[in-house]
Amino acid sequence: MNADLRTLRDRLAEISDLHRSMSVLGWDQRVTMPPGGNPARAESLATLGRIAHEMFTADEIGSLLEKLRPLEESLDPDSDDASLIRVTRHDWEKNRKVPADLRAEMLRAGAHGHQVWVEARANNDFPAFLPVLERNLELKQRYVECFEWDDSPYTVLLDDYEPFMKTTEVAEVFDEIKPALSELVQDAPKVDASFLDVPFDADKQREFANRILATLGFENGSWRLDPTVHPFCSTFSNRDIRMTTRYQPTGLDSIWSTMHEAGHGLYGHGIASSLQRSPLANAPSLGLNESQSRTWENLVGRSRPFWSHWYEPLQETFPDQLGSVDLDAFVAAINRAEPGFIRVEADETTYSLHIILRFGLERQLIEGTLEPKDVREAWNAGMKELLGLEVPDDANGVLQDTHWSGGGIGYFPTYALGNVISLQIWAVVQDALPDLEAQIAAGELEPLSDWLRENLYSLGRKFKPMDTLEKLTGSSRIDPQPYLAYLREKLSALPASA
Amino acid sequence: MNADLRTLRDRLAEISDLHRSMSVLGWDQRVTMPPGGNPARAESLATLGRIAHEMFTADEIGSLLEKLRPLEESLDPDSDDASLIRVTRHDWEKNRKVPADLRAEMLRAGAHGHQVWVEARANNDFPAFLPVLERNLELKQRYVECFEWDDSPYTVLLDDYEPFMKTTEVAEVFDEIKPALSELVQDAPKVDASFLDVPFDADKQREFANRILATLGFENGSWRLDPTVHPFCSTFSNRDIRMTTRYQPTGLDSIWSTMHEAGHGLYGHGIASSLQRSPLANAPSLGLNESQSRTWENLVGRSRPFWSHWYEPLQETFPDQLGSVDLDAFVAAINRAEPGFIRVEADETTYSLHIILRFGLERQLIEGTLEPKDVREAWNAGMKELLGLEVPDDANGVLQDTHWSGGGIGYFPTYALGNVISLQIWAVVQDALPDLEAQIAAGELEPLSDWLRENLYSLGRKFKPMDTLEKLTGSSRIDPQPYLAYLREKLSALPASA
Repeated sequence: MNADLRTLRDRLAEISDLHRSMSVLGWDQRVTMPPGGNPARAESLATLGRIAHEMFTADEIGSLLEKLRPLEESLDPDSDDASLIRVTRHDWEKNRKVPADLRAEMLRAGAHGHQVWVEARANNDFPAFLPVLERNLELKQRYVECFEWDDSPYTVLLDDYEPFMKTTEVAEVFDEIKPALSELVQDAPKVDASFLDVPFDADKQREFANRILATLGFENGSWRLDPTVHPFCSTFSNRDIRMTTRYQPTGLDSIWSTMHEAGHGLYGHGIASSLQRSPLANAPSLGLNESQSRTWENLVGRSRPFWSHWYEPLQETFPDQLGSVDLDAFVAAINRAEPGFIRVEADETTYSLHIILRFGLERQLIEGTLEPKDVREAWNAGMKELLGLEVPDDANGVLQDTHWSGGGIGYFPTYALGNVISLQIWAVVQDALPDLEAQIAAGELEPLSDWLRENLYSLGRKFKPMDTLEKLTGSSRIDPQPYLAYLREKLSALPASA
Repeated sequence: MNADLRTLRDRLAEISDLHRSMSVLGWDQRVTMPPGGNPARAESLATLGRIAHEMFTADEIGSLLEKLRPLEESLDPDSDDASLIRVTRHDWEKNRKVPADLRAEMLRAGAHGHQVWVEARANNDFPAFLPVLERNLELKQRYVECFEWDDSPYTVLLDDYEPFMKTTEVAEVFDEIKPALSELVQDAPKVDASFLDVPFDADKQREFANRILATLGFENGSWRLDPTVHPFCSTFSNRDIRMTTRYQPTGLDSIWSTMHEAGHGLYGHGIASSLQRSPLANAPSLGLNESQSRTWENLVGRSRPFWSHWYEPLQETFPDQLGSVDLDAFVAAINRAEPGFIRVEADETTYSLHIILRFGLERQLIEGTLEPKDVREAWNAGMKELLGLEVPDDANGVLQDTHWSGGGIGYFPTYALGNVISLQIWAVVQDALPDLEAQIAAGELEPLSDWLRENLYSLGRKFKPMDTLEKLTGSSRIDPQPYLAYLREKLSALPASA
């Protein structure tokens, strides 16, 4: 191997080790750490983050990348090595534009903001949260100034989560789905789901979630599932996948929450071993990553074939609650559309409307056409317009999400893009696997996860998000029509309850 | 604050963050990690360890220490700042003597050796393990050559675990206790403990262990207890203490295993906040640390006062097994002396004899008077001589411990030193707390842990181990007599069973 490439790989591997370590520290913080450990943990995370940032933005990396230009040009652009050099150069140039001070300040403000938000939400007190929002926006403005943009300064922020996507492109997609979704929600039949609104034993939920996980295509001994307050998935390596879920006092949400995180987990599990310990050991964007969590949660996990296999075991697990509920009623209940205040509890149809609201507000805040102090009012007006709901308080409104408190502005759109992309990919999957429905109905999910791993997950971050989509689907454009068609078909098949 | 001191503190804090992070990675590896995560974890640990080593042995640290000499001389030697400079200089000079290559090679050989040992032990195959032992000894010889010594090359290895202690000093202590312990074991009455050799529900054991832990003086929200194969305790900070224990299919060993680790945990919990994120945030030596695990496990946890409070709750927890066993019979059973093959299962009296065997073998190996290939034979002969037992196989003999496989030679003596030291400190505690017995019998353990924290734990690693002992007991000499007197009194009080 070229000596410069070897050196670059070694440096990137060490930086990756630091990021993986931060990931372990973060998982422990959210899953197992006693609260007293928090101050020390914040220090460790800051130190590791600083060292990783310094190692990555070092002049040495830049000069290695320069020296590697001829090699890169001689290689197949699709090769691992050419991709590594290309992606590293992009990351290096982007990271070098941000002064270390500003980055540290953003991290600090985010950590502080999170604490303030927790209290403000508990007290329904938007004014207490306002200074945090203002401070984070001020820092984001300074961040935006480090870069160039043409359509909107918001594109700079979006790029951290959905690289190479423009604000106007997102707006175009959202403008197309917004009226269609509103109409779907309005016309959606009322479905009885009261049988799910009762207590289900948490231990049995856990056992059931683990039973499903064991069939999704994970290698034995390469994953675990733990309970947490806010479900998430961390990938320490492609053989150490940590999924988390929560067991609510009523309802069976843990099933879909687990399958959602399993979608992220399968992505990380499928990234090629040759890409591990490098910047390529990741999904190309949050939107693509989310497309897979949505695939496993919804396209698989709410489908009739899936439950034609799993509903009997579920009834056997919860005979008191579900013994007298038939499969049709169950499938209808878990696919109903019903406006609600909380994004993370939203159904498939209303979910993207929650995102459209947040995207609009964020864009206006960054473009300067909305003052932070007016966000609550704008939020409540948007909820009325999009979902026909009167927001009762801030905890059910503008303070429900953690993202803005930590500085995560530009993140929300990727959730809805994931919904849309999931159906574009699903169409290709259905063509490629003609027996898919029968396999799912037989509880055989490995053909699906094998195909997705081979054709999508294994590529990691070698290619830009839309180039990855094109390799898979033949189109590099986000197309909302399959998503809307799927929702229409699903909702029209729902039986209206008496 | 002096600018150089501030810079030194900042560097040491960052290095401490790296060590803390490694501690989290190690805890996760042993408690929660799925086995597939191991290769990636080994890489992360190696990278963090290398970065920490490079940062600590940097020339900059040395020149800061030089510049700080005048300040150090102007300070009270007992002050935090003077201690920090003094201890850091000692560590820095010691670490600089070891070539980075040799250290890396020792780490690599240890990781490899551990794998080989696991298999060799499972197969009772000492010859398969022999090359690992030879390799580790060869590396230890090279390590020894980095330093100067006068009494024995073994002192160099001992110094990594029991700093400033000489091999001849350890030998003197062991020569004094060996005949006394042998005699005690020989004369020990046979005590019936068959009622403990039955199954106890693991969940109930866990609940009971947690109940005890909650009374020891830990601040709420600063610790947790998890199950693991080989119990240990990690201290991530003085407010994030991770104890582990194991629940065996029969017996109640988890109680004393938990209290043992709690002793380590209370030490870490008690180290002053002003010493956190520095090389002083540790016990002065493994022997002193072990003296406290032994204190809580044995001097408290096997005492009659302790069980006069806790035995009723224990009987209520396990009525089938203990309902008809009275307190006297229970206390006698948990204090009996009985030769066995396995160190970690040994009682208080025989335990140190296991250590004396290992110390003798290690010393001969390092001094070159015993060949690695002859260790098995020497082990078995020693077991016959010290405990009167014929070793049936290697798993119950020379392959039972993990230490040698990972290169941990020089570690064993600290276990027995801990036993001895625990009684020297206990004598002072009893003088200082005249109501101690009554408090323990009332379930009030906080006065004890408060006193130990204030007088011992809070000092961290500010002073040499024997200087720390002197501050506490007035003597800087290890004195085995209190330990022997304690065992004699305990064993003579045991009722011989029919």
